[in-house]
Amino acid sequence: MNIEQLRADTPGVANLIHFNNAGAALMPGPVIEAMIRHIQLEANLGGYEAAGQQSAELENVYGAIGRLINARPDEIAVIENATRAWDMAFYSLPLQHGDVVLTSTTEYAGNYIPYLQLKKQRGIEIRIIPNDEQGQVSLPGLKDMLDDDRVALISLPVIATNGGPVQPIEQIGALARAAGVLFLLDACQGVGQMPIDVQKIGCHMLAATSRKYLRGPRGMGFLYVESSLCQNLEPAFLDLHAASLLTSDTFNIRADARRFENWECNVAAKLGLGAAVEYALAQGIEPMWQRIQQLASHLRDRLANIPGMTPRDPGAIKSGIVTFTHQNSSAAQVQQWLAAQEKRINVSTSTSRSTLLDMQHRDLAEVSRASLHAYNTEAEIDTMIEALIRLPRA
Amino acid sequence: MNIEQLRADTPGVANLIHFNNAGAALMPGPVIEAMIRHIQLEANLGGYEAAGQQSAELENVYGAIGRLINARPDEIAVIENATRAWDMAFYSLPLQHGDVVLTSTTEYAGNYIPYLQLKKQRGIEIRIIPNDEQGQVSLPGLKDMLDDDRVALISLPVIATNGGPVQPIEQIGALARAAGVLFLLDACQGVGQMPIDVQKIGCHMLAATSRKYLRGPRGMGFLYVESSLCQNLEPAFLDLHAASLLTSDTFNIRADARRFENWECNVAAKLGLGAAVEYALAQGIEPMWQRIQQLASHLRDRLANIPGMTPRDPGAIKSGIVTFTHQNSSAAQVQQWLAAQEKRINVSTSTSRSTLLDMQHRDLAEVSRASLHAYNTEAEIDTMIEALIRLPRA
Repeated sequence: MNIEQLRADTPGVANLIHFNNAGAALMPGPVIEAMIRHIQLEANLGGYEAAGQQSAELENVYGAIGRLINARPDEIAVIENATRAWDMAFYSLPLQHGDVVLTSTTEYAGNYIPYLQLKKQRGIEIRIIPNDEQGQVSLPGLKDMLDDDRVALISLPVIATNGGPVQPIEQIGALARAAGVLFLLDACQGVGQMPIDVQKIGCHMLAATSRKYLRGPRGMGFLYVESSLCQNLEPAFLDLHAASLLTSDTFNIRADARRFENWECNVAAKLGLGAAVEYALAQGIEPMWQRIQQLASHLRDRLANIPGMTPRDPGAIKSGIVTFTHQNSSAAQVQQWLAAQEKRINVSTSTSRSTLLDMQHRDLAEVSRASLHAYNTEAEIDTMIEALIRLPRA
Repeated sequence: MNIEQLRADTPGVANLIHFNNAGAALMPGPVIEAMIRHIQLEANLGGYEAAGQQSAELENVYGAIGRLINARPDEIAVIENATRAWDMAFYSLPLQHGDVVLTSTTEYAGNYIPYLQLKKQRGIEIRIIPNDEQGQVSLPGLKDMLDDDRVALISLPVIATNGGPVQPIEQIGALARAAGVLFLLDACQGVGQMPIDVQKIGCHMLAATSRKYLRGPRGMGFLYVESSLCQNLEPAFLDLHAASLLTSDTFNIRADARRFENWECNVAAKLGLGAAVEYALAQGIEPMWQRIQQLASHLRDRLANIPGMTPRDPGAIKSGIVTFTHQNSSAAQVQQWLAAQEKRINVSTSTSRSTLLDMQHRDLAEVSRASLHAYNTEAEIDTMIEALIRLPRA
């Protein structure tokens, strides 16, 4: 990888050390330019007229996402964000009383609350897949749970928002397929960071965001729905883009995954997402994943050598999301201290608010989170380590 | 009104004559600048860090919308677009088998399809309010229909996407209140064009978009839900912004209208919406509405004098959306001809695809649509009229 070029493409690195890529990564130049160029086109030509002029580019976004995750363009819906993308999949499923949803301890509260809502509204049942000794989903444990034919869905994140293991998604997908159970993958922290191949995974649905490791704009995401499932899944919400009004009493839902979209979107952000996917593909996902893991490993090694500091990520395979706690300082204090350095260092705080089950399971209230991307460097990590060594006693 | 200043604030008017304000209006400088400034801040500081720095501005968006429609800030949800804003209201209603939804002939297909979906899924019934002789909703007709206590909802647009009447929304609201029936108003073509006061209207819910007469960015909208209703309306979709996960089995939905939002949004577009609302308020909605009506009246008068051309808007009160047909030319031909003028003229085409009931009712397949805003001028209208007079025979 040409790291100098990666950094030259990233205006933000001149000002700060950005280790909040799991929140929202620094956008590269092509993404920033695609958005600003389109906003200016809208201002000078009109919003619809500008979209019309960019119709081929807009269509290419589906192809680019398809290449990123090895799906067909007609299996992709571009949706305003990953939450609503995931919602459009989950809430459209015909889950009924007694149906069982399997999830992991690492599930995001934003997904878990919908499970509870359908538990309350429809009487579905939620079961948590046990972890193995390394902290990721236990495959034998999952296999046992799949013996119950009331299991209708496996739904979990490939990587949790608070770090931890990369889940064995290909093995989970194989078990789901063997059991004839639907598999909905939340790939928010996966896409752009690591290879995500829906054919290899065998997931039926996958939701992802633009703003994290893909380095695209905020307020944009996408949904993959396998073609054969798509045609049988009536979207929870419909409009005149997802469906056509034929008579005053009949409508027809379109066949492709865009049935999960609606007519309106932020066109500039959609073009920004397309530029981000093209940029990621040009870098190569596999070399980025190697580099991210190397950087994260370096950071964990160095953190482990600071007195009072504890790296917190379990898992046989770990990602670029590095979490840690300090015995004398809160995560807010760590975040503020790093942000106040001469060259600002962005890290974030992950609390049990977003990953309650995992944090309770590990008896943690919060962790500091430094999430690394390929454009980060060992020198940046070393700068953060030096700052952490100087962390004032609370 | 200072029209020179309005136009100086609008870079697009230098290049073209924009009569597609009902599609997406030309954004004024403060909106364009708010968005580009924030995208650059995100690029240089990080997406979350930029939002954090703009937290007060982001909070102000709710207050500005509240002032625009005379609601409390806690009754406002800022949502990715008007379709999803409307969906979050409509699909959250506890409509059941036999419940009746009343709508107008002018309803948008994007809203009508959801009625049909719930008719199919839950057995609701759809009834169309008759029009009076001027073409808007008949108030005596509506009053009669409200005698049936199965009526659960009145839901209609203040102005249709294909022009026509401004519905008598304050009188409709009064009838809804008297009958104890919920009133969901689609104000997409109303906000920014005419005074919209939810207290005077008495609607319980109102959805609107940013990109039309408000002159804000694409991919942004808002929802008003009256405070007393809000607390009893469980959103169709939940996440960890709308609700909090308390234990592995319990969650708590927030009290304010942001329960209809989700965590992620396009922050630049949200700030752009705020800037658009502030800009509209600074111009004054009432003088803009007067001017828009004057311009539209001028355009209709001039259209009526072109041989073969027929203005098509019924209604006691008409809006800035001017529709017409030509006996020898299709709407597509009109649109292309105007777009090909030396100074490009943007109009659009409205087909029965988006307003099937109304178009069938009036035996029209399509209309040309020239939608005027306060920054347009009589000279621009006259230029379009001259071009239409020169329209080649098909």
